[in-house]
Order: sequence, then C-alpha cells, then structure tokens
Amino acid sequence: MRIALDVHGGDIGASRNIAAAVQTRADPTIELILVGRRQEIEAELKKRSTAAERFEIVHADEKIGMDESAVQSVRRKTDNSISVGMELVKRGDADAFVSAGHSGAVVAAALLTLGRIPGVSRPALGTRIPATTRGKVAFALDIGAVIDPKPEMLLQFGYLGTAYVSAVLGVANPTVALISNGEETSKGNALVRAARDLFEATDLNYIGYVEGRDMLHNPPNVTVTDGFTGNIGLKVAEGTAAALSDVIRRELTAHWHSKLLALLLRPTFGRIRDQLDFEGIGGAPLLGVNGVVIVAHGRSTPRALVNAIRTAQHAAEVDLPSLLQGAIPVPLADADAGSEPISSVAPVGK
Amino acid sequence: MRIALDVHGGDIGASRNIAAAVQTRADPTIELILVGRRQEIEAELKKRSTAAERFEIVHADEKIGMDESAVQSVRRKTDNSISVGMELVKRGDADAFVSAGHSGAVVAAALLTLGRIPGVSRPALGTRIPATTRGKVAFALDIGAVIDPKPEMLLQFGYLGTAYVSAVLGVANPTVALISNGEETSKGNALVRAARDLFEATDLNYIGYVEGRDMLHNPPNVTVTDGFTGNIGLKVAEGTAAALSDVIRRELTAHWHSKLLALLLRPTFGRIRDQLDFEGIGGAPLLGVNGVVIVAHGRSTPRALVNAIRTAQHAAEVDLPSLLQGAIPVPLADADAGSEPISSVAPVGK
Repeated sequence: MRIALDVHGGDIGASRNIAAAVQTRADPTIELILVGRRQEIEAELKKRSTAAERFEIVHADEKIGMDESAVQSVRRKTDNSISVGMELVKRGDADAFVSAGHSGAVVAAALLTLGRIPGVSRPALGTRIPATTRGKVAFALDIGAVIDPKPEMLLQFGYLGTAYVSAVLGVANPTVALISNGEETSKGNALVRAARDLFEATDLNYIGYVEGRDMLHNPPNVTVTDGFTGNIGLKVAEGTAAALSDVIRRELTAHWHSKLLALLLRPTFGRIRDQLDFEGIGGAPLLGVNGVVIVAHGRSTPRALVNAIRTAQHAAEVDLPSLLQGAIPVPLADADAGSEPISSVAPVGK
Repeated sequence: MRIALDVHGGDIGASRNIAAAVQTRADPTIELILVGRRQEIEAELKKRSTAAERFEIVHADEKIGMDESAVQSVRRKTDNSISVGMELVKRGDADAFVSAGHSGAVVAAALLTLGRIPGVSRPALGTRIPATTRGKVAFALDIGAVIDPKPEMLLQFGYLGTAYVSAVLGVANPTVALISNGEETSKGNALVRAARDLFEATDLNYIGYVEGRDMLHNPPNVTVTDGFTGNIGLKVAEGTAAALSDVIRRELTAHWHSKLLALLLRPTFGRIRDQLDFEGIGGAPLLGVNGVVIVAHGRSTPRALVNAIRTAQHAAEVDLPSLLQGAIPVPLADADAGSEPISSVAPVGK
C-alpha cells in the first residue's frame, strides 16, 4: 500500500513526521512517500541515520502554515506539500494521503484536486472517539470541515458515517444520533430540529438525540453534528482529559511517597491512558471526496501519526471512496455535487 | 439571608434537597424556606430526626417533572414549587431561589414572575468552570437558556458575565472570549463571526476566540457562547471527567495491590478531585432577571446543592439584580426588554 505523508504537516513539522515515517519502516505492507522539501527530508532522515533511499521522496517546494488562509494558500502556493500529496492520490501514484497540516487547506485541496463523490454536498471530517465502554466503536462527524451546514448535509453525514463505521470499523447496522442539548425530541437548535425530522424519515438506525455527557461514556456508533459544535466538543473532551492528566501528574509527583506509589501504579496508569487515548484513534478520515485522505491532529505525536497512517492503509485496503459512492440514497443526493466552484465549497474560514 | 429551596427539584427529588437543607442548618446566616408539598417535606425531615419547626415550609401543591414542557407546565400548574419559589422572591419574602429542577421551567417561571432587567433581551445561565490553573476564576455563559441567540444577545451575555465575575467573583476587568472552532479571527460560525465584530467595538476586555481545549486548561474569566454549544461543551467536560474517574476507579480496584496503593493515595486523589470539581461550583446563576435565581444541576448531590445555596446567599448579599441593572450600555440595550409575552421568550424547548 502506497501512502503519501505530508512532511510539513502539524505544529512541529518535519521532525515528527519523519520520526513517524521511520517507525513504520519495519512494516513491509506500507510504502511511504514523503512529500515536502527534499533537503529538509534528507536532513531529518540523516539525523536518524536512516538512508534516504529507503523512502520515496516527492519534492514539494512550499509549505502551508497553520495560520494561513485555507483556500487562498492552496491556490497561490501551487507547489505546496498538501496539494502535491493530493495529486499523487489523484494520479493513482499513492493509495492514500495523510496530513497533520492545516485541516482547512487539506479539505480545500482535496475538493480542488480530487473532487466530491457524486451526491455529497460537502465532505465531512470524522473521528473515532475513545469510548470508556470496552470494545464500543464510537465515531463522530463532522468535527470541523463544515461550520454552518444545512440540515440536509447533517443527514448526508449520517449516511457517510454509517457507511464508514459499518465497512471500515466493522459494526453492522450502527446506531446514529444527533448531539443536542437534551434527549427530549423538543430540544435542539433550529438546525438540529430540522435534521431530526429528516433522520426520522430514513432507514438509518437513528436513535434520537444524545447529550454531551454521552460522548465518551455511552456514545452511539455514529454521532452527527455540525463542524462548529463537533470541533468544540472534541476539543473540550481532549482538553478535559489533558487537564485531568496534568492534575494527576502534578499531585502524584508533589511528594516523594506519592511519587513512589505512582511508580508502583505505572502499569495501571498505562491501562487508564489506553482507554481514553486520543492519540490512538488514528486521524480523521475526510469522507465524501474521491480518494483516501486522513487528517491528523496538528499536535500529533509520532505515535498518533503512525496510527493515522494505519487508518489510511486500512481505508485504502477497503477502497473507501467506492464504498461511500452509493452510501447516500439517490433522492437525498445533491445533484450539483462536484460542479460547484472551489470558492463556494471552501469549508474552513480565512 | 432568606433563601427559598425548591424541594422537588432534581432527578432524585425531595430527599436530596432536604439532606442539603439539613446540612446548612448549622449556619446562622442562612434561613431556608422549603418550597413544596408540606407532607413530603415533613416526612423527609422526620426521617432525619430534624424538627420541622426549624425550617419555614411554604406549601406548593404541584411538581414539574424533568421531561415536561417548560412553558406549558409553568402555565398550567400554577401552584408548582418553582413558580411558588419565584413568587416568594418577587414579594421580597425570600432573597433568592434555588432549584435543581427543570432548567427550562425555572427560566420560564423567572421570566413570567420576576421579569427581565431593563435592556436584557434574554436571561442567560452562567456557571463557574473548574479551572486547572490554581486560583483562576473561569465563568461561562450561556449554558442552556438561549438555544438560538442573535449576535446582539451574545454581546449582552458578555456584559452580564463581566458584571457577575467582577462584582460577585471578585476579578477586576475580567477577560472575555468567544468560544470558537479555532483561534484565528477568520474562524467561527456565522453567529460567532457576527458577535466577534460587536465585541471588538466595545470597551469589554475582549481577548478574541478561545478553543474547546482551553475551557478547563487556560480559560478566559468569561467565556461567551450560545446555549446549545455551551450546554454541549459543559456536558462533554463533565462526561469526560466522569468517564476518566470511572476508568481510574475500575483500574485501581481491579487488583488487591493496586487497591492498597490507591488507599494510600487517597489524600492525593482527594486533592485531584477538588481541582476538577463540578459539584463545588455552586449552581448556575440566571443572569438578567429581576431577582436572584440559582439553577443547580439536575443530578446534584446534597453537597452540590449546599454549594448552590451558598452561591445564592452570596449573590443576594451583593444584590446581584441591581449590580446587573447598569451592566449593559444603553445603546446596546433591548428597548423592548420586559414587554415581550412569555411565549416568545420561552428559552428551553418543549
């Protein structure tokens, strides 16, 4: 499986991406294509005493910074590492593309280069949620690609999520819910209430509203939300888990005796970490474009990037774009999909 | 200070509220008025061998269930414990009212009985957020009263929150931020982007957007959001903290040796719990009505209810409604405030 990796993606940049690449090198099923500035890539590989010949390098001269405008930077910097990676997928030179870069730029470049699957109005970013119920598969979308969606788009997300979770994550007839400010059907903002009516009229395994507190504790298989709420909800969960870990670490290392006890509890804390592991979830698939594109967190560690690469591999193995092709019933599909100009579909601000 | 307590508020009902009432009885500065069915109250007090004469009881014949329609139930059940409590505040027979009941019904009853402060379009529910930065005061509003606000209402929330945090929580010139899907000013949904322009033109200490991950870790003093996003964000944070606690408890009690170590670490875990303590935050003040009203969480423990009663006491001591009276600059104030019929201002669904 040939997977292109955006070497300049993420808040840290080349070093973490190359570290992740080196970690996957032992796996013969993955051929990585490193996309970015050749000199930087070779320098990073040299630091790790890894011969550059062991990876394919595709030079891209420009980087898109995390604070640049998504659409403008993709258009102006034609030779940027994100767009070059997408081109590899489009031409069939890569089976998938992974980037921890500017998620808005990734979505814009994917739309511009790969285009949408017929019937999809806007592609959505989905992610696995680490559920505390053992073995439970929880997936949420959109987490940031479509900030002000229409109700019909939320319904499309429901179909895309259902197809992904059943085909890629192996859950038959997954449960689908809308996240809302209460479980009663009367709750919800105008968007969610309109979407609720649409979901109720489908053959999706729609189970109603779920609340924020269910997100980790008792989640449905597919949680559907707009990109604004999804982004905030996910980051609140990440931030709360990180804050709690910080407090635990600070308290446990405050005294020599608690430090000693913490040392003895290390395996236990390891298991705790594994159960609420945002790094292990393996990047966010961009659902609804003609190709396998995985967006990794901008703060990804090498371990998180390796997991994103494995997600990309798996999605390419099952041929995700073909699977999603028929996911949305014809009457609900957006007839204009694929024909809109990039400027009107650009999803993330700036 | 005379504080009315809704005995029937909360998922559990009378027993928890009476348990909380009994706990505050030792404090001579608090005179509690128990509002609800006299027989039930007396029975609960008897169970705890607490003489009923030690509390004032105001009989209210009806309860509003957590799944009832907010506006309809308040209108139909005229003798419900929430409305009766509001009447006590209106007549000056109580200095504040505390309820762990249906938050929509509390807001509706407050609007109907107490009315809005001049200039406030919609009252907002605010809450302290347990911040991991020691001593940091973090407050967020709205967390569920106004589900689809206009940008101007978010600005009013900014003024109400600033006044509350400076006058009640003692922070001079508090920082104010809008929660959004990224820090860059180009981010945000249509509502937040419109509100951003309004905030930037004021003399509030507006610091821009904050992301979900800052909510506990590095929050502004005042986080402004719509009630839909605020409700979901808060519940995600609570749910994540609860899920993590569950996992920790499960892992620590899985083996006799970890159980023993956990026992030795008990004081440490106590300090950890105190720092991310959603029970300790003391209920959510309803800001913008003519009276002191505190909404406690439906799942409140007696300890959480005691903290809500203390918040009510403090807010009444500083005369919160008068403090908020001049909080919103005249040109921004809603000239129609107070004149709208209840049906059009009813905030929470059903």
